[in-house]
Amino acid sequence: MRLTMYTDFSLRMLIYLGAKEPGVLSTVQEISESYNLSKNHLTKVAHELGKLGLIETVRGRGGGIRLKVEPQNINVGSLVRKTEDDFQLVECFNSNTNRCILSPVCGLKSALHKALEAYFLVLDEYTIADFVVDKDKLASILFDQPL
Amino acid sequence: MRLTMYTDFSLRMLIYLGAKEPGVLSTVQEISESYNLSKNHLTKVAHELGKLGLIETVRGRGGGIRLKVEPQNINVGSLVRKTEDDFQLVECFNSNTNRCILSPVCGLKSALHKALEAYFLVLDEYTIADFVVDKDKLASILFDQPL
Repeated sequence: MRLTMYTDFSLRMLIYLGAKEPGVLSTVQEISESYNLSKNHLTKVAHELGKLGLIETVRGRGGGIRLKVEPQNINVGSLVRKTEDDFQLVECFNSNTNRCILSPVCGLKSALHKALEAYFLVLDEYTIADFVVDKDKLASILFDQPL
Repeated sequence: MRLTMYTDFSLRMLIYLGAKEPGVLSTVQEISESYNLSKNHLTKVAHELGKLGLIETVRGRGGGIRLKVEPQNINVGSLVRKTEDDFQLVECFNSNTNRCILSPVCGLKSALHKALEAYFLVLDEYTIADFVVDKDKLASILFDQPL
């Protein structure tokens, strides 16, 4: 029941970028330093978020990354559905590898599916904008700016 | 977002025992053969379910394990809350190891907590009895008995 490091880092990167003024560029280096997270991992996260169309990269000197989509249009439920690669709650969720003989008569899979859907319905209520409401406070924490 | 093998095996063992007539003993050996799961792992699962007061062991020749609690009184939500050992959805869920500088202002933890609670509220609606309704069919699958 834990999210992957990739989901965790994706959310943090989007919050960081969402806390900046629209259009302003950030570098993976500064995000890595701000959160004290691996630059390598964050580089991969930036690449994946780019592929999802959520951030864009400006190359060259003075370049960096920024949101391509407004924070209020980045739904957290949709994001986590994409960044989590393993929803195999129990063996039978993967029909390729499932060997559980109960499968034809078991109601457990359906119950766990319903529970997972309830989980996402809650996350669907949130966008990145909900987590960057207090921009001044965030800036003082993330960008080391005085309040 | 996957459950541990321990939770998966616990649910399957309880379904197996719940499919038996009340009071009838099963052995870990037969459950292991029926599901084609590791006997070692199932032995540990039986031990833990015993500690939770859900199954009891009759020792000696002809001994075995059986439910100590009726299937309709084994709530799936309560069980999974106990068998899952890691609800650390993101780093800040563990206050001992959390290093995320966002924590003081971040609303993400609260959103993920709400989502997790919604997940369990669904599982709370189920008991093991819901998964052993068709005892004849289950018996034919699990105990290799003709329909």
